[in-house]
Amino acid sequence: MRKSIATVSVSGTLAEKLDAIAAAGFDGVEIFENDLVASPLSPEEVRARAADLGLGIDLYQPLRDFEAVPAEVLAANLRRAERKFDLMRRLGADLLLVCSSVSPDSVGDDDLAAEQLHLLAERAARHGIRLAYEALAWGRHVSEYLHAWRVVHLADHPNLGTCLDSFHILSRGSDPIGIEAIPGEKIFFLQLADAPRLAMDVLQWSRHYRCFPGQGGFDLAGLVGHVLKTGYEGPLSLEVFNDVFRQADAGRTAGDAMRSLLALEEAVGLAPKMPPPVVPTGFAFAELTIPKPAASEPVASEPVASEPGGSDGVRLRELLTALGFALTGRHAAKPVELWEQREARILLNTTDPEPAPEGPATVGSALARSATVGSATVGSALAGSATMEPAPEGAAPEGAALAALGLESPDPAGSAARAGSLLAPVLPRERGPGEAPLDAIAAPDGTRIFFCRTGRPGHSSWTGDFGPREPVAGHVTHIDHVALTQPLHHFDEAALFYRGVLGLRPLPSLELPDPYGLLRSKAMSSDDGAVRMVLNIAQVGGQHVPWQHIALACDDLVTTARLLRAAHPGLLLPIPDNYYDDLEARHDVSPELRELGLLYDRDEHGEFLHLYTITVGRVFFELVQRLGGYRGYGAANAPVRLAAQHAGIRR
Amino acid sequence: MRKSIATVSVSGTLAEKLDAIAAAGFDGVEIFENDLVASPLSPEEVRARAADLGLGIDLYQPLRDFEAVPAEVLAANLRRAERKFDLMRRLGADLLLVCSSVSPDSVGDDDLAAEQLHLLAERAARHGIRLAYEALAWGRHVSEYLHAWRVVHLADHPNLGTCLDSFHILSRGSDPIGIEAIPGEKIFFLQLADAPRLAMDVLQWSRHYRCFPGQGGFDLAGLVGHVLKTGYEGPLSLEVFNDVFRQADAGRTAGDAMRSLLALEEAVGLAPKMPPPVVPTGFAFAELTIPKPAASEPVASEPVASEPGGSDGVRLRELLTALGFALTGRHAAKPVELWEQREARILLNTTDPEPAPEGPATVGSALARSATVGSATVGSALAGSATMEPAPEGAAPEGAALAALGLESPDPAGSAARAGSLLAPVLPRERGPGEAPLDAIAAPDGTRIFFCRTGRPGHSSWTGDFGPREPVAGHVTHIDHVALTQPLHHFDEAALFYRGVLGLRPLPSLELPDPYGLLRSKAMSSDDGAVRMVLNIAQVGGQHVPWQHIALACDDLVTTARLLRAAHPGLLLPIPDNYYDDLEARHDVSPELRELGLLYDRDEHGEFLHLYTITVGRVFFELVQRLGGYRGYGAANAPVRLAAQHAGIRR
Repeated sequence: MRKSIATVSVSGTLAEKLDAIAAAGFDGVEIFENDLVASPLSPEEVRARAADLGLGIDLYQPLRDFEAVPAEVLAANLRRAERKFDLMRRLGADLLLVCSSVSPDSVGDDDLAAEQLHLLAERAARHGIRLAYEALAWGRHVSEYLHAWRVVHLADHPNLGTCLDSFHILSRGSDPIGIEAIPGEKIFFLQLADAPRLAMDVLQWSRHYRCFPGQGGFDLAGLVGHVLKTGYEGPLSLEVFNDVFRQADAGRTAGDAMRSLLALEEAVGLAPKMPPPVVPTGFAFAELTIPKPAASEPVASEPVASEPGGSDGVRLRELLTALGFALTGRHAAKPVELWEQREARILLNTTDPEPAPEGPATVGSALARSATVGSATVGSALAGSATMEPAPEGAAPEGAALAALGLESPDPAGSAARAGSLLAPVLPRERGPGEAPLDAIAAPDGTRIFFCRTGRPGHSSWTGDFGPREPVAGHVTHIDHVALTQPLHHFDEAALFYRGVLGLRPLPSLELPDPYGLLRSKAMSSDDGAVRMVLNIAQVGGQHVPWQHIALACDDLVTTARLLRAAHPGLLLPIPDNYYDDLEARHDVSPELRELGLLYDRDEHGEFLHLYTITVGRVFFELVQRLGGYRGYGAANAPVRLAAQHAGIRR
Repeated sequence: MRKSIATVSVSGTLAEKLDAIAAAGFDGVEIFENDLVASPLSPEEVRARAADLGLGIDLYQPLRDFEAVPAEVLAANLRRAERKFDLMRRLGADLLLVCSSVSPDSVGDDDLAAEQLHLLAERAARHGIRLAYEALAWGRHVSEYLHAWRVVHLADHPNLGTCLDSFHILSRGSDPIGIEAIPGEKIFFLQLADAPRLAMDVLQWSRHYRCFPGQGGFDLAGLVGHVLKTGYEGPLSLEVFNDVFRQADAGRTAGDAMRSLLALEEAVGLAPKMPPPVVPTGFAFAELTIPKPAASEPVASEPVASEPGGSDGVRLRELLTALGFALTGRHAAKPVELWEQREARILLNTTDPEPAPEGPATVGSALARSATVGSATVGSALAGSATMEPAPEGAAPEGAALAALGLESPDPAGSAARAGSLLAPVLPRERGPGEAPLDAIAAPDGTRIFFCRTGRPGHSSWTGDFGPREPVAGHVTHIDHVALTQPLHHFDEAALFYRGVLGLRPLPSLELPDPYGLLRSKAMSSDDGAVRMVLNIAQVGGQHVPWQHIALACDDLVTTARLLRAAHPGLLLPIPDNYYDDLEARHDVSPELRELGLLYDRDEHGEFLHLYTITVGRVFFELVQRLGGYRGYGAANAPVRLAAQHAGIRR
């Protein structure tokens, strides 16, 4: 279907918005009046620019507070509308959104509303303009979509139809089944917005919290299904007011918007050619990149600095060894080490980070760009160059970082094709001689995702690049989950990406207090739990270290913790005694937990034991043991962990 | 009265919180359990640290989900409570907050609740502990404060009383008059929080939007008045959960908190010695400071760079001259020029900015500090050194900035005494020989406020420092208002400061979209409108230039605009034609507005004409004419202005 988006949905000047929207592949736009009013471009220039970009102007919006008013107000309103018709002629727009009135001038009289809308439609028809009348959820007299339709039906003019807006319908809890009673040719326009389910004033909810389909809690596929049954053939258009998008890069927001529409089309059966999601079946590896120390770092006197990866490299090797990993191979062509324990694999990459690329083709704010670009970025040794997301604002991107993930895929090429169809940058597949080709993509936060078939007979495996290896025994069995810190303002985008591309299912997001702010955290997993990821963002307090971590599944954490505590107490994050006083007040737990520094959680399915290591660069490890089907991630203990981490970096 | 604050109300570790709270002069604290649990300090160490700081531990909080449960749950709950009693003994705390249950285990049976609370009180009494039972606004069965009191009354135990929390009472719309029916000795504790009036889920409202008394929409003075009538003699304690305070500097938040309690005490007649507010009667001057250009700026080839203030100085002099100002004097001892037109006075200060001081004595995050300190700050030539607030994050503080305001005060010493009593830094009064002494304070954003009596017979005037001057005629009559950009996260603090110190009355705040974010704006004025200020903050989008402006009242703006447009068109901010198309559709206005580039607004009292100049450094001027009692600030036009300003800096 034709895809449109309202200019209010992305940031920037009107010209910047049009550029970004066209670059993301939209067919048309709704021009939001306030964007035009503040623009130095004349309507004719806007029209020409849109045409040059291949964008249709599908709607001009909005005309407010028109209908059901006394005669003298009607005269002024008609005069105002005539000015807008002139403007639309100059713009080359032929559909005007008319919102149900919120004015105290209006009365609750459907016949009067219909009569005046008929009059307006009559005037509009002389200009070749059609009107789409929409019920605002907070309209004074008309606030339900079927009420707006009744008024349109009463007015009975070929140039008057209705506009459906998913937010106005679903925020009121109206049943969208009633849409099927409206003739498709009288639905002049369909505006789509999702939103998180919030109990708050609907106007504030609408102005600040709308989001793209799939990022909130509304059943948009269901609603669109009803609309399609009417025979509606107009655009699917996104109208999203959102505090995040107001400040985000316009090009990025427009891409996120397009991805949401593609996924929505798929959900309603309109995208027969979209490659299906290929759900990963496990983690093949996690890759840590260790940038060279800055030139100013004193290196000569430290013997460790001559080791690959400098002091972070030394500390990571010490940590991995303590956790029971062994170095099993070195990459044939690159300074990359493979560390293994059973099915858990960690790559240590001491390649210099690639030079920071220019960033996504962007038409966003130059101010915004200068604030976020230029941070050191982390590259992956297995990948060619790709567009990288700079580190989050306020971050300290120095030191070791989690740069790439290998996921086991039953169909690596299918995984990459799926990602590409959802606008993920697919990384070049060319490899050096003797290197296994790998399908790889870049996630919105710059993390590289490789699709692997590790050690599968009949398939070349990426592990071949590391030569012959011996299995490593131990209590760590595999990677349970990884936690990635998302760039500020792109949490919903990342969640939609991982959900759409990898078929992961998100849990509701949580708020986690730390001493200096508030994190938002969203866990996602495959249905069988084989791949679990946690996305974190600093929701309040921009000064967090963007910590990332790798949680390693352990089949005997008590024994492992005892060994670690005896041999390497300095490698474990200290947990305060007060935590155990509180834990023991709440649960009847063994005193062994306190002794070993293990954290504890439970849910209705089982219990969870875990511990954290110290942090190297941005990265730390967690050891976890799930007992009896526990499904969570120990989030209840995250505030204690965060406090201890802050204390660690401030010592 | 004794003043306390919950540790949750400020950011940081528990140790940092205690330090900040003590430094702000509080008598005691409520220890929030989560803060203790995450702390490496043992309860004994917390007790000793609080004692060393002179802080009492007035409350330990909270015990949740205790009452009205089946027998087997009661046993576990009593066990849990006994652990907390032990903990409180170690802490040296003897009052425990018990929140009404939200657990599905509890039943709606007041007799059972009372019986179990009686049992708990009996146990508590053995430890010398008292219990304060509080109705959470979202309690499962007990959510009204009078209901909690009925349960306490039924339970009838000397160690059981009630805790009143203004948020829980007022958020539900309960009438606080009922408090007077509770015997004062049964009110064991009083927690105070204000909040903006929001229509949203009360739990979310409570967790994220509480604020200090006077910063929200609740009548806290009225509530406290009712409590005092009962004979309550316990502390006034602040319990504020707030997303801003989570990340703000702890010392600063604690000072803001104390100021709010001092103002509240005054409002309920408990602060007989507080100097009364002295409402200013007008602006004496606005001072612009122009830092020396950075060494890297190419200066040799530009003749202007040899002028005092460099190119910004040249442009400001050009702008002031174009607006009809004349240079009337130079400071006897400092490189400061006085520019005047009728009663409007602008100081241009080309003194080098003072070196950035260490900032407020702070116990906040070292990360936060490193992100905000070190920005160039602007000093005032008239002042000695004082603690300065760094420029807002993400700001470009280079160039001319509004550093100080002179306010006409009927009693300058009284103004300064008032400010000092509300914890404003009072600046040293010493002056060089021949300089007039001026009472001055520093506002939270670092703006210096001078209290003046300009040209009043029998008083030495600050203008004496500038030698003999001639009056300057013109259409600009005086400073109508100034708009200051507040540092991120300190909007409510600044509003409370100006309101408490200067007696200005705030209007509700507004949201103003700009192309890359959202501003929040709050206007404040004296009752007669002689002093008006607008506080702005970048609420969404951290990348704004922290623009400041001086709005000059003009008695014939049409004539002035015509002259300016003819002689200096390049000095005026261009307004898009689309603005006038829209304005003319909405109002029947003269085409002269378009021709002259004047903006227009109206309210129920009158009309408003205004125009903006280009920006120099961070500063621009606005010319305004109020017709027929208009009371606003042209906020409806701010988005057009912001778009034009962004376009200007991006050209």
